[in-house]
This record gives sequence, C-alpha cells and structure tokens, in this order.
Amino acid sequence: MSAGPIRLSREARTALRPATTARITGGFWAARRRVNAEVSVPQGPDRLERAGNLANLRAAAGAAPEESGFRGDFPFQDSDVHKWLEAASWQLADGGEGPAEEELSRQVERLAGLVAAAQAEDGYLQTYYQLGPDARRWADPHWGHELYCAGHLLQAAVAHHRATGRDGLLDVAVRYADLIDATFGPGKDETVCGHPEIETALVELYRETGERRYLDLAGYFVDRRGRGSLGDGPPEGSPGPRPGAPYWQDHVPVREATAVAGHAVRQLYLLAGAADVAAETGDTGLRDALVRLWEDMAATKTYLTGGVGSRHELESFGDAYELPPDRAYAETCAAIAAIHFGWRMALLTGEARYSDLVERTLFNGFASGVSIDGERWLYVNPLHVRQDDEHRKAATGDQNAHRTPWFRCACCPPNVMRLLASLPHYMASGDAEGLQLHQYASGSYEAGGGAVRVGTGYPWEGRIAVVVDAAPPEEDWTLSLRIPHWARTYEATVGGEPVAERAENGWLRLRRRWRPGETVVLSLPLDPRLTRPDPRIDGVRGCAAIERGPLVYCLEQPDQPAGLRLDDIDLDPDAAPSPEHRPELLGGVTVITALALPHAVAREGWWPYRSGGTGSAWASGGPKAPEPVPVTAIPYYAWANREPGAMRVWIPVRTPPG
Amino acid sequence: MSAGPIRLSREARTALRPATTARITGGFWAARRRVNAEVSVPQGPDRLERAGNLANLRAAAGAAPEESGFRGDFPFQDSDVHKWLEAASWQLADGGEGPAEEELSRQVERLAGLVAAAQAEDGYLQTYYQLGPDARRWADPHWGHELYCAGHLLQAAVAHHRATGRDGLLDVAVRYADLIDATFGPGKDETVCGHPEIETALVELYRETGERRYLDLAGYFVDRRGRGSLGDGPPEGSPGPRPGAPYWQDHVPVREATAVAGHAVRQLYLLAGAADVAAETGDTGLRDALVRLWEDMAATKTYLTGGVGSRHELESFGDAYELPPDRAYAETCAAIAAIHFGWRMALLTGEARYSDLVERTLFNGFASGVSIDGERWLYVNPLHVRQDDEHRKAATGDQNAHRTPWFRCACCPPNVMRLLASLPHYMASGDAEGLQLHQYASGSYEAGGGAVRVGTGYPWEGRIAVVVDAAPPEEDWTLSLRIPHWARTYEATVGGEPVAERAENGWLRLRRRWRPGETVVLSLPLDPRLTRPDPRIDGVRGCAAIERGPLVYCLEQPDQPAGLRLDDIDLDPDAAPSPEHRPELLGGVTVITALALPHAVAREGWWPYRSGGTGSAWASGGPKAPEPVPVTAIPYYAWANREPGAMRVWIPVRTPPG
Repeated sequence: MSAGPIRLSREARTALRPATTARITGGFWAARRRVNAEVSVPQGPDRLERAGNLANLRAAAGAAPEESGFRGDFPFQDSDVHKWLEAASWQLADGGEGPAEEELSRQVERLAGLVAAAQAEDGYLQTYYQLGPDARRWADPHWGHELYCAGHLLQAAVAHHRATGRDGLLDVAVRYADLIDATFGPGKDETVCGHPEIETALVELYRETGERRYLDLAGYFVDRRGRGSLGDGPPEGSPGPRPGAPYWQDHVPVREATAVAGHAVRQLYLLAGAADVAAETGDTGLRDALVRLWEDMAATKTYLTGGVGSRHELESFGDAYELPPDRAYAETCAAIAAIHFGWRMALLTGEARYSDLVERTLFNGFASGVSIDGERWLYVNPLHVRQDDEHRKAATGDQNAHRTPWFRCACCPPNVMRLLASLPHYMASGDAEGLQLHQYASGSYEAGGGAVRVGTGYPWEGRIAVVVDAAPPEEDWTLSLRIPHWARTYEATVGGEPVAERAENGWLRLRRRWRPGETVVLSLPLDPRLTRPDPRIDGVRGCAAIERGPLVYCLEQPDQPAGLRLDDIDLDPDAAPSPEHRPELLGGVTVITALALPHAVAREGWWPYRSGGTGSAWASGGPKAPEPVPVTAIPYYAWANREPGAMRVWIPVRTPPG
Repeated sequence: MSAGPIRLSREARTALRPATTARITGGFWAARRRVNAEVSVPQGPDRLERAGNLANLRAAAGAAPEESGFRGDFPFQDSDVHKWLEAASWQLADGGEGPAEEELSRQVERLAGLVAAAQAEDGYLQTYYQLGPDARRWADPHWGHELYCAGHLLQAAVAHHRATGRDGLLDVAVRYADLIDATFGPGKDETVCGHPEIETALVELYRETGERRYLDLAGYFVDRRGRGSLGDGPPEGSPGPRPGAPYWQDHVPVREATAVAGHAVRQLYLLAGAADVAAETGDTGLRDALVRLWEDMAATKTYLTGGVGSRHELESFGDAYELPPDRAYAETCAAIAAIHFGWRMALLTGEARYSDLVERTLFNGFASGVSIDGERWLYVNPLHVRQDDEHRKAATGDQNAHRTPWFRCACCPPNVMRLLASLPHYMASGDAEGLQLHQYASGSYEAGGGAVRVGTGYPWEGRIAVVVDAAPPEEDWTLSLRIPHWARTYEATVGGEPVAERAENGWLRLRRRWRPGETVVLSLPLDPRLTRPDPRIDGVRGCAAIERGPLVYCLEQPDQPAGLRLDDIDLDPDAAPSPEHRPELLGGVTVITALALPHAVAREGWWPYRSGGTGSAWASGGPKAPEPVPVTAIPYYAWANREPGAMRVWIPVRTPPG
C-alpha cells in the first residue's frame, strides 16, 4: 500500500475507497510533481528558516536563548512548518532513492526533531503562545489558531508515520491530541477554533491510531460550530468591518446550512472535515448537508477556473453569482481546500461530478498557484488583470497578483507542496465492483481488487490508454472511466473494438471478464470551446472564455501583437479558435489562436457613460468596422510566469449590431 | 453676506467667487434641507451622547471623573462632534426664528462649550490622546487622526464664527492651530497626518482670520505628502493587506500624480485642500495637477451616481474602469468629498463640467446617503443588491447596505448634515461679468454685482424661471446658466423671446442690459434616457441604466410585480420608458416604467458555465420568447427606504439574437 492521505478505517461507509497503490509516472502532473520534488519542497527549510519559523521552534525548546522572541506576524507560523513536513513526507513516500531523497529525509528528521523538541511537558505545542509576551493558551479562539495549528501538526505526523514508519512525530501528535481531548468537549471548554482544520486532522489521526476518541472529538467540533460559542468575535480597532460569525464559521450549524459562506478556506476545511466524519460514521444527515453545500458552491460561487472566494474583503465567498474576474480572490489555499472537500465527496457518494470539479480546479485555479519553475507563488488567482493595473504594479502585499518567493502569511506554498506530493491518491478509487479512474495521468493504480496502467498525453492529447494488468480471473470486474463533464462526445474501445456501453452520470462502466494486458482506449475531444457564463453572473456578462479539454485559457500580454490593448478588444465569436502545441513555451503548452476585434471607440470627453437611443453603437464599437487581429491564448495555469502585464480569461464577445 | 463655506480672501485668484448671498426657498433641496433641519441635525446631540463622544469631552475637561475612560472605537471620535457643530452652525446661518432655532442655538453653545472646556492648556485637543491609557501625542501619524480631527475643529469654528459672530470656538481653533503651526513644518515635525483634512481647514481659518501662517502651513502639508514621511505604514497584526502608502496619501506628491488612488475620502479631502491652496495662491502648477486628477477620476473611476471608491478593501479607488456595481463602496463621505473638490475646481477654473459632476453626485450618490425621513444613513452606496444577498440580510457592520440610525464609525451622518446645511452656497457664483447659476433650486442668489430669484420644480420638471432682480443699471451684465451635460437639447427665453445665444462649454451666457424683474426661462428635456457604459467598464458590460434629467434611476423590489426576480430579467431596449409623478411615494418622486423580459433560462445541473457553438442562446434567454413584464424604476437616491430587497441601477439589455 503506497502512503497517502485518507486511509479509511475498515468501518468507514463510503461508496468508494482510495486506491491502495497510486503512482504517477509521466505526463503533465509528473512534470509538475518533479518541479515540486526538485525545487519547491527542497527550498522549504531555507524559506522557513529565513521567515523565522524554525527559530521559533528552537526558542520554544529552550535550545537557543538568543532567539527568545517570537518571529513572524501571525500566531499560526508553526503551521507552515507542519505543512512542509506533511508535503515532504508524502514526497518521501514516493519511494525514490538517491542523494536528493537522502537529503530530504535528513531535513524531514531535522525539522520533525525541532517540532518534537518544542513540545511542552503537557503536550501543548504552539510557539506563538509559548514565546509570546502575553501568552495565554486557548484564550483567543478567534485569532489564536491553536486548534488549526494542531490540526496541521496531526496531519504532518500521520503523513510522516505512513511515509517513514517512524513513531516520533506521531507520538508528539498523540500527546497533543490527548491534551486537546482533555481540554475541549462537552462540559469542558466548549469553544470552537476560529479556523477549522482540527476536524479533518482528528479523523485522520483516528484512522492512523484507531483511537475512537479522536473521531468523536472531530464529530463534536463539527456539530459545535454555528452555535454561537465565538460570540460576535473580538472587538476590532480598525475601521474595517468586524469579521462576524461567517468568518469564523460559527454562523449556522453545518447540518442546517444551505449556502457556503464566510471565509472560503475556513468554510471548505470545515466541510472536508465534516465529510471525513460522515465517511467514518455513515451519518446520512451530515452527508446530505454536504451535498447541498457543494451544489451551492459549484453552481453559484465557483469561478470557471475552479477557484472560490469572490471577495478580497475577509477572504470570503460572495453572494450567489457574485464572481468578479478582476477582484476574484480565489486564494490558492481555497482551491486546495475545494479539492480536499470534493475528493472526499467523490469517495463518499461515488458520483463523478465531484471529480469533474476536482479536475477543473487542479488544472486551473490550483496549478496557477505555483510558477512553472516552482520557485514563486500566487496567493490570489484573479481571472482578469487590467492593462493599467497601478495597484498590481505597486504591489507588495500577499494579496496582489504578483508571484513572490514566499509570503508574510505563507499558508499557500506548503499547501501546494503537500497536494502535489500526495496527488497520485486523487486519481483512482476502488469498490467491490472494481476500479474507478477519476483523473487521467500516466501511472499505475491498484484498487478494487485489480490494477491498471495508464498512458496518456492528457491534457494536451485526448487519447488515454488503460492497460488492465490485474483483475479477478474468474469473475466480472468493472473498470470505470470518468467522462469529464466538459466532453460533449467521446470514443472508447477495448482491444480495438468500440464498446457497447454508454456513460451514465459521468461514468463509463466497463464490466466484463478481463484478460491481463487488455487495453482500453478512451478518446476525449479536444477542440477548443467558447464558454458562456450563466446570465446571472453579472461580472462577466457579454463575455466568453476559451477552453480546451480540462484547461481554461487566458489572453496574456506577452503573446499578443505589439500595441494591442487587452482592455480594448472584443472576441470574434465566428472565427474558430485553432490550437498549436508549443513545446518551448512555458514548459510546453498548447496555445490557441483566435481573432479579436479592437474597439473602434476612443475616449471622448470626461464622462464614461453615454445616453442614446436604443442602439448599442458604443458597445459594439462604433460605425467603422475594425480589422480583426489574431490573439493567442495560453492555459490559465501558466500565466504570470513572464513580465507583468494584462491578462484576461473572460473576453467580451462582439455582439451583432442591434 | 450669508454665511457659508469658502469665503475667499481678496487676494484669491479664482475664475469665479462664491455667491455673497444664497438661499434655497423651495423645491427638492428645500424639502431635503427641511428634513435635515427638523430631524437629522436636532437628533445629533443625543446620538453623540449615546455614542460616548460628549462623555469624552467632559472627561477631558476633568468635569466628570466618573467618565474618565475613552469611549468609542476610534481615535477620531471627536470629529463627529466637530462636524455636527459645523452643520448646526450653517443651519443657524439660515436665519430662521422660532423655538426650534432657539433650541438649536442652545445645543450649539452647549457642545461648543464642551469642546472649549476639553482643550488642554497648550491648545491641544483630542480626547482619545488626552484620555487614553497609552496616550502619546503626535506619535501615531498613521492612525492617530490628530490633524484630521483638528481640521474638523477648525472648520466648525469658522462656521460657528460666521454664523453667530461669536469668538469662543474660533479662539479654541486659533489656539490649536498655533500649537500645530509651532509643532509641524520644515525643521520641526515633518510628518504628515494619515488622513488629510487639515489642509482645507487651515486655508479656511486663514480666510476667516487673515493669518497667513495658516495658509502657508496648508501649502506645506500639501507638498509634504508623497515624500515618504509615513514610511510603509505601521506593522499590522491582521491577515489583511497592509494599507500601504496610497491609503495614507503618501505615495506621490500631488503635483506629480496622474491618477487618483488609495483611500477615496483621504484622496479627495487632500485634493479639496490643494484646490483651496491653489485658489489662494494662484499656483498654476498645482491647479494643472488638480485638473488632471479630476479628469482621471471622472472619466475612469466614477460611478454613474457620482459615487467614488470601487473597493470595500481599504475603502479605496480601484483601477481605471474598475467599477463593479454590486461591490461599489461609494462611501457617502467620498461623495461629499468629491463635491467639495468639484465645487472648488468650478470656482478655480470657471468650467461647467465640474458642476455637472457636482449635480450628478448631489442628486444621486450623495442624496442616497440619508433616508427620506432623515433618521437613517447609508455608509456605502452600491448600485446593485442581489435578490439573495445573504450578506446584506445578516449585515451588522457599517459597511453594509443597510440604513442604520448611527454608525460605529460615524463619519457620514454629520458630513451629510453639514453639506445639506451649507448647500445653498453650491448653487451660484459671480465674477466681474455677472452671475453664474451652477445648480437649479428655487431660491435667491446674489453674486457678481447682481441678484436673481429662481423658481423651478426641478428635477421633476425641466422648466427653470430666473427673475433678474438686480443688475448694474447702466452696463451689460451676464447671467450664465449651466446647461447640464446630460441635456441633449434645451430652450431658453428672455421675456418670452427665444434667446439668440447658444451654450458654449456648458454655459449659456446671456449678456445684456437687464431691466429689474426681467425673466429668463430655461427648459431642459426630461425624457427618460437609456445610458450605456464605456465598453471598458467590465462590471456593467451589456447593461443600460435609466436616467431622467440629473437623476439616475434604479429598480427596487417593492415596486415590481409579485414574483419578479430582478436578478433574472433583461431590459427591452426598444420599449420607450414612461415617467409618472407619484406625489405619495417616497416623499414624492417621478417613477419610470419600462419593459423587462424575464430570462427563460432555468438553472440546469451543477455548473453555471456552458460551452457551445458561436451563438448566444443562453445569454439571450433561450429559444422561447419571454412575455414582457412592466418594471418600475425609482430615483436611486430614494432606494432602501422600504423593506430590504433587491435593487439594481444597471440592467442587462436584451441583445438581438446572434
């Protein structure tokens, strides 16, 4: 069994179970994972050292009296270390051998040792409160992030244990979890943490240790939320808004909620944790609530890229259909949280739509979070940057659309690292009938009593070959292939013969007696598509986006003709966009060329609104027909890897003259 | 001479000078001013008492040892009192007589007395720093708001002196101004205040006292900004963005700036102060910069309502053409600041366009800030509230689109009060040639050596009658009438005869030998208009707004047929909207009825984006032609006076099938 997240207990009641073995060996994700393994993850310890995180651990251990003060701006600095340890552990679980792996192993043990040494006698571990001048444990549930940090520690410890088999960090986690269990619960401290995360972590610790108290505590935390234990939040001294209960995820019990709301990462970490609880307990009421909330998120609050979180203000979800492309927050961590939630829902229900959205988020709003070279990061992932974005040019903060080597609030980089390092485990699942392929990446997967090998150039190519290496020899076995929701057609063969089965609800289920080595070929259509928004999405009315396969495309300044202003064009919807693979560009991408029609309108006078009759002369560009200009779109995930400039996913579409 | 703001010195070098007498006696603004005088202003002292502002003054005076702690959340609480005193003083300057005026006069003297008593020995006056536990004067230029509060005190004192002739509050202001002048300046403390306001106030104090040092200090502060005296701002403990230099208006010197940026109110208070400096010094370099900045604001960063400030985040301007209707911040105070700036530019340059925008802001983005009954306020003024705006329903903070009786940060209510109380002084001006009418309100105005009376039902009616009561008997004299930029035609008569003159650059200049009692009639066209945005304004692409005269209209839920969802309609651009005056509705408004076409589209599946061919079937409502439904628009300023519900200014326009 290869090590990964979500190792369900035997008692878990889910439709599907994660693959027992999952390896990605080639193609798109292998390349991204190689950069993660060779650049991003190895840089972690130095970044953490420079940001002060490791000094905090040494100081808490009393090992370095000269480092006695807390470093960093946030009480949750330790979680960056925990998340890196989780990422590096999943990386070690990949099983490579060589000097790089040995060095990584040394770093993991060094940092795990720092964490262990920092733990207090009674099991407590958060350096901000161990070192802070006015340190008071558990006194600030709103901003303290204590259970949040504990959650990441638990996840790191589980990953470390699964990857290395060593007990050291797991012992630290168990001691801390026992302290938390002794501190929180009915009749004890009944306050929840302002930032969910402990829930999913406690379930995973239960899975790893078999200690039922952890699952029970996770369930307690899930149900304790939304009952006002955080009050109205702390008084704020700034003129900004008071965060309010949705920010802390304390506005409504999960079971009663009808809409995702508040801080996007907090909401989705909570829902992932609730899905873990539902998976282990079989609680159908909780599951139904999660289905409802996922549907609300997907249908009304998700960007085309899979990104979520419409507001910079409070890093929060907006109203239904409030999806502005320019001010999209779409935090990288929120994309990751949506993937965590979605994959758990896929396992829980067996439905393909959850993996449809996971695929979209992976290839777009998640992959954009790290640069092609693996060295720089995006905190926010907008779908539109204007030509004259003065704010971006002057950007210094985390929340601007600039790639930077690290953030003051460095939650995103190690979060990307841990998802990429564990990514093989999001590809396939199994059940009593057979094996399900949720995502298409060259590699090998074992689940449901069988084993397959996948070979594909996806997403650049639509052909996916699946070799059934092992299946029960004496009985029917089902290989299920997800037909992505964007695919309007598909073709499938077994041994070169078209299959008779048709996909239902997103699954093409091929049930038969398999001979080892038999090959299935699935062909997905990769013609570029123009995609329109629901008319209620006000922020992109009158626009279209270019997509191809699972990839959302964008226009970025460096690829356009000199002098073309991306703010001043319409897309010609009648010109068919054409793809071309460019192996030398941005690590190798397929670009798409389309035709644009520059606005004929020039700025007149001082007022940007014009009253007129019933025509739409202004909006459609004036009387003079403009000359079409070719524009070139790149995959959205690859933007912001060259000089800063304008970018847009949604392009105004020239409307017929009215 | 009737008392009002901006009493230019004799040396001032402006194209126009404010009217010497200005009275509004009837019509729209008289009604709004009556509510201000009878409801809003009289409620002030009680609101200030309940919010703790008056207790702070008593405590600073040492008069109430039991009230020793500072009350309120912000260091600038005193400014609410100062702004109320300014408002009440302008109200007293209206010159009414009766029990209400006597009571108001008593309250003004009582509060002015509290302010005077709170002043420290050396002239300092800010209770937050006089009472605070870690009080340190001038130590926190970013958040301290000390010069900001001082500015409002100076303005209150000038108003009080002009209105009552009494010296008490002016003496307080002079003592404080002298302390500031002794503390700040070249070779002294060279830091600027994080919130501009002192600049405009010092110029006005110079005008009232003739003390040139105050003008010089104002000029110094204007030019000191943008030179990094505030550094990068204070370290912040919150995960939000660090405000950065534009927030504090310290990113670029005013003379070098090419774009309005940062916190909208701070930016515009600064520009108003710079315009005051330019007016008094004749500094053409400064004036040119102000023209450039106004043009940037008007052409790229102003809502149709005249509101400014596109981002909740940091209450700031956005990029050029970033004007989302739903997340418009458009703070009421920013509208007021834009009016302050615009009126000063109108005087400085004599150009009509500044008063065009002042009119638009007054009737829309400013007037919306206070309820019809004068008791409740809006802090933010969005142009779109969705049907299912969960955030609004749960709103408790200042920054939500809920009218509330007072705010935690109560800057807006007394700001509205002071503008309404001094409004007559924004109507007319004079120069060596004659008198200019900038705004149309029934009343009497003296300026430029003449006097006129205006009678009009504007903005409900387009007929404006101007009687010339006095003009130089032996020479030509010019009555100038602003032809609003929204007016595509107009008619004008003198003594019933059409005039030969035509408007140039927004001014219809009628130069002749006038006989007292001669009447000019200007008729402006009030047919409803459909207005389109510049195609670069992404947030409202494909939409139109309904306007009539200077009024922007909106659809609000209570006026629509039962069951109609404002999120789900297109406007039929071919159906002519029709107006109807409804004296019983919302204090008397002209409503406009138009036809809407409900979207035929129903939500399908879980994904709100749809790939298709080149058609726009989804966007234009599907194959089935919907039945048109009448919808009724009300003036934007009157929204949010009934039960909360959806509202929108910009309405999607049905596009012809593509």
